[in-house]
Amino acid sequence: MKRPTIKDIAAAAGVSKGAVSLALNGRSGVSESTRARVLAVASSLGYRPSVTARALSSASADAVGLVLVRPPRALGDEAFFFQLIAGMQSEMSAALLLQVVSSREAEIELYRRWWAEHRVDGVFLVDLLVEDPRVELMSALGLPAVVVGGAGHHGALASVWADDYAAMTSVIEYLKSLGHRRIARVAGLSSLLHTVRRDQAFLASVVDGVIVAGDYTAEAGAAATRALLEGGEPPTAIVYDNDVMAVAGAGVAGAMGVAVPSELSVVAWDDSVLCQQLGLTALSRDTFAFGARAARALLAVVDGASPSDVEDVLPELVVRGSTGGVPPLAGGPPSAGAPVP
Amino acid sequence: MKRPTIKDIAAAAGVSKGAVSLALNGRSGVSESTRARVLAVASSLGYRPSVTARALSSASADAVGLVLVRPPRALGDEAFFFQLIAGMQSEMSAALLLQVVSSREAEIELYRRWWAEHRVDGVFLVDLLVEDPRVELMSALGLPAVVVGGAGHHGALASVWADDYAAMTSVIEYLKSLGHRRIARVAGLSSLLHTVRRDQAFLASVVDGVIVAGDYTAEAGAAATRALLEGGEPPTAIVYDNDVMAVAGAGVAGAMGVAVPSELSVVAWDDSVLCQQLGLTALSRDTFAFGARAARALLAVVDGASPSDVEDVLPELVVRGSTGGVPPLAGGPPSAGAPVP
Repeated sequence: MKRPTIKDIAAAAGVSKGAVSLALNGRSGVSESTRARVLAVASSLGYRPSVTARALSSASADAVGLVLVRPPRALGDEAFFFQLIAGMQSEMSAALLLQVVSSREAEIELYRRWWAEHRVDGVFLVDLLVEDPRVELMSALGLPAVVVGGAGHHGALASVWADDYAAMTSVIEYLKSLGHRRIARVAGLSSLLHTVRRDQAFLASVVDGVIVAGDYTAEAGAAATRALLEGGEPPTAIVYDNDVMAVAGAGVAGAMGVAVPSELSVVAWDDSVLCQQLGLTALSRDTFAFGARAARALLAVVDGASPSDVEDVLPELVVRGSTGGVPPLAGGPPSAGAPVP
Repeated sequence: MKRPTIKDIAAAAGVSKGAVSLALNGRSGVSESTRARVLAVASSLGYRPSVTARALSSASADAVGLVLVRPPRALGDEAFFFQLIAGMQSEMSAALLLQVVSSREAEIELYRRWWAEHRVDGVFLVDLLVEDPRVELMSALGLPAVVVGGAGHHGALASVWADDYAAMTSVIEYLKSLGHRRIARVAGLSSLLHTVRRDQAFLASVVDGVIVAGDYTAEAGAAATRALLEGGEPPTAIVYDNDVMAVAGAGVAGAMGVAVPSELSVVAWDDSVLCQQLGLTALSRDTFAFGARAARALLAVVDGASPSDVEDVLPELVVRGSTGGVPPLAGGPPSAGAPVP
């Protein structure tokens, strides 16, 4: 059951290695009866000529690629990406070629290599940047790709996205309806397009807002919260860009004696089991279904379909116990548990 | 920047396609000067002959494989696997070829195909079964592999594992020291070897025990807990095989008016952010480091090292607020927050 070689086939078929090579590659120089015998022997030994065949033809690589640029330790806590990957796999019979790298340069080099070596039929691009060299690269390489998340700026590529601007606006309007004026945002990586979209929406609707940059880790969420609450004019509500930062932030507030929600309202982006169990108000979407939708879009592009632009359902604000009316000292009267407007 | 073909190289080098093929494949029939020109042109165009080359030589596939047999929807909630994958990636410059399938047969077929097609240099085997056909298959195929988790039964393969038997024994001894006698276990999949090891350790140390089968989903954890608490002789402590089932179980207990920990102690296997935040007593190990250790073991085997048998550090019981003394009606006096023996 060892992997059979040309030599094994030659020995079993009673012909030369050269004859096996000619037969397997469909070249002239061997009789039809020899070719038939070689193919039969190769098949019975479990020989798969497909890597060579794929390289010479344009047959499918039976895999699509996903490169993530994140510190691996932090990545392991991000439920979002694993839900996304699980959703992608639910719609594919192909494998996912996954690699975690430390820079955009390394990511780009991988796309070039994977495509040149016929390792993938297409790729998912996540974490779209404000100025993203990958969009042009895909077109230049002719590598089928789908941009996952982040509207606009995806050039001629297919895109599957959610409206971060409208979602952020809905969160701020909700907090304003509870009487909040001084609202903080603990943002994700500032190089990412969806961070900028959320920043823009936040600043457009907030009355008295402040943005602190974070990087999705618990440490960043804790540090930003501490800085905000120790500042001269602490906010009465904080909106975090992921669940891990929100949970860490709520923990810091509690440790500092700032009660949630009576003194501080907390909202998390991207609902999760963590938010559900801790009762955090969160923007909820079905990340698994989002991944499945992205996979369908990529398979369509690989099959030659025109790039589509698919807007996912708008994330829905699920109100739980971490948000309430603004505290008496800071503004209007308290009004706990107000519904979404 | 399109992917260059033999035809492109022929045109740029001013030779026939046949000459390019002979030159790239190191075959006779072209002069050395032509060969040098063809190789230079191929290189300048970014041509990568490596797929063909890899198929003909025994060069590296630059990827290792991981196949998961799980319903994708449930998989997305399992922090364990994503932490494991992140840890694996932290130690590899190679990509991970990942596929989620629905059966062991499909898993085995993938190993055969990936190895025959030179897609992987080795594979990680997870979820070791009591009778596991994969162990024999790896040896028969000559496919480098590391068994991740589960001691014993791994034949001649390398293995990275934690001692589930000793870990379970430590949990039961701790609960007994708090006065618990009637203890339940909500187990994972009964086909998995580590489930059986934990069953054996549980039955060997428990005084009055009951095991209910689960499948790692919140639904299974909730259903098992309800059945146990509604039974004629409800347990005073429950040990769950993963965090998701434990959290769901604690939720059901609360909804049924059974207070944790004064009326029911809850212990989760595999600590997580979820357990930390909810204050669940849990068996803790560094899954990320475990994944990194597995990657180092696989890379060593791929490089020709003898298969090693690496025991991971014993999972440590982290006592939090979900465990306490046995309730007065059910036995001895309550003793909240007792330390690990």
